[in-house]
Amino acid sequence: MSAYQREVLVRFAHCDPAGIVFYPRYFEMINGVVEDWFEDALGTSFSGLLYHRGLGTPTVHFEVDFTARSMMGDRLTFFLTVERLGRSSFSLDIRVTGHGQERVRVKQTLLFTDAKAMRAQPIPDDLRARMEHYRAAG
Amino acid sequence: MSAYQREVLVRFAHCDPAGIVFYPRYFEMINGVVEDWFEDALGTSFSGLLYHRGLGTPTVHFEVDFTARSMMGDRLTFFLTVERLGRSSFSLDIRVTGHGQERVRVKQTLLFTDAKAMRAQPIPDDLRARMEHYRAAG
Amino acid sequence: MSAYQREVLVRFAHCDPAGIVFYPRYFEMINGVVEDWFEDALGTSFSGLLYHRGLGTPTVHFEVDFTARSMMGDRLTFFLTVERLGRSSFSLDIRVTGHGQERVRVKQTLLFTDAKAMRAQPIPDDLRARMEHYRAAG
Amino acid sequence: MSAYQREVLVRFAHCDPAGIVFYPRYFEMINGVVEDWFEDALGTSFSGLLYHRGLGTPTVHFEVDFTARSMMGDRLTFFLTVERLGRSSFSLDIRVTGHGQERVRVKQTLLFTDAKAMRAQPIPDDLRARMEHYRAAG
Repeated sequence: MSAYQREVLVRFAHCDPAGIVFYPRYFEMINGVVEDWFEDALGTSFSGLLYHRGLGTPTVHFEVDFTARSMMGDRLTFFLTVERLGRSSFSLDIRVTGHGQERVRVKQTLLFTDAKAMRAQPIPDDLRARMEHYRAAG
Repeated sequence: MSAYQREVLVRFAHCDPAGIVFYPRYFEMINGVVEDWFEDALGTSFSGLLYHRGLGTPTVHFEVDFTARSMMGDRLTFFLTVERLGRSSFSLDIRVTGHGQERVRVKQTLLFTDAKAMRAQPIPDDLRARMEHYRAAG
Repeated sequence: MSAYQREVLVRFAHCDPAGIVFYPRYFEMINGVVEDWFEDALGTSFSGLLYHRGLGTPTVHFEVDFTARSMMGDRLTFFLTVERLGRSSFSLDIRVTGHGQERVRVKQTLLFTDAKAMRAQPIPDDLRARMEHYRAAG
Repeated sequence: MSAYQREVLVRFAHCDPAGIVFYPRYFEMINGVVEDWFEDALGTSFSGLLYHRGLGTPTVHFEVDFTARSMMGDRLTFFLTVERLGRSSFSLDIRVTGHGQERVRVKQTLLFTDAKAMRAQPIPDDLRARMEHYRAAG
């Protein structure tokens, strides 16, 4: 297994009057990295999931440590691994570094649901098989 | 003690293609409620803190449970209490309800820092005294 | 006729590293004010339009002058009048002031569409009648 | 002369409950494309401008036509040319296409200012020279 990696540039738009990343923007970055992982690594776009399979993947839990600040112009690297694969839900471990220093540590739990009724659905088999490749080493 | 309360309307702008609140927007709402609490209850605006006292209040930790979805037009009520008051950091407990149902449960830890050097600073005494009023009952 | 009025607080979340409102945030404010006007003055929420009538109101044109900067903590007043009422489209004139000074001047044209096919639809009669009250004096 | 080009993926985060790009997100994309143009083509980052030269580039005028909708997963191409180069201000022409179809047409005027006093400043000579290369053909 290896982590899925993605670089994100800290833009003017991400920063607050103190000149550092405003935390809601980190959550937008996280959403974008998970979206890219679905498309690049799991072979399924969020739009395909929603419009063709009628599935949503709402987040049900977050645990986040902001260990160092990031500033405009920093190039952050996101490392994503799968920590837990349940029947309907799964947990991701996401580490964010900049200039070799840890910036943010995230544990995110998402749930597959029927997009209309919002009831839990099993993780589709094709996705589950690909998710296994990103499982964190025991 | 009593919780600080604040109502937030779920707007079109907060919702995603599945018609529910997109989680980064919840974090914007949380930031706004904490900002209002500072101004209304602690007597100090974020802009006063930053420009007149040279202080920032970055968030260092989040623990969030999204227990039920919220939709466009919902009026959410945020209840904020202080769970812990340290020397430089403090933890908030924020509950979000809609139509009497719990939607989100947040534990947020913020840190007072020197806005330039980003080093921890003691919680100013005037703010600490007012924060005590929002302390969750033991 | 009189303008529809609405006050919006400039929050920390709206401001950029230069300490002034980041322009995409002005467009979020504009969207919110138009949303409030629909709900308060036209008697129809965006969510009712979309989910019960199958109608969307995409913006097709903007002309915006940012005449003075706004800063964190400013309380802006938005004044909205209807400049033109066509068959399917209508144009709004929105003036934004702060401390009695003009900050932003907006001309926005929106179009009623079928939310699925995105084809132009006539402005519903009940909405048209109420929009007339906000028509700018000739 | 040739246009500066940039591709932007329409993400889940950009889309509204009707499934199309929410217009404030277009303005975030525009800001990002102009930021990239400054860094890639003009040799100066927004952060360098602000923190090392004390300069800001607030937008003073927008004229925008949204000619066709964009949906999640679309890959948009932004084409930027310089339409006018004044002493302190300059105007950009930005065309956005998707699947070979025009989606958005933008005219944006920005102003160089002293970031503190917000007074107009002449466009720095090094930037002006590089901006000339992106001038739209007469």
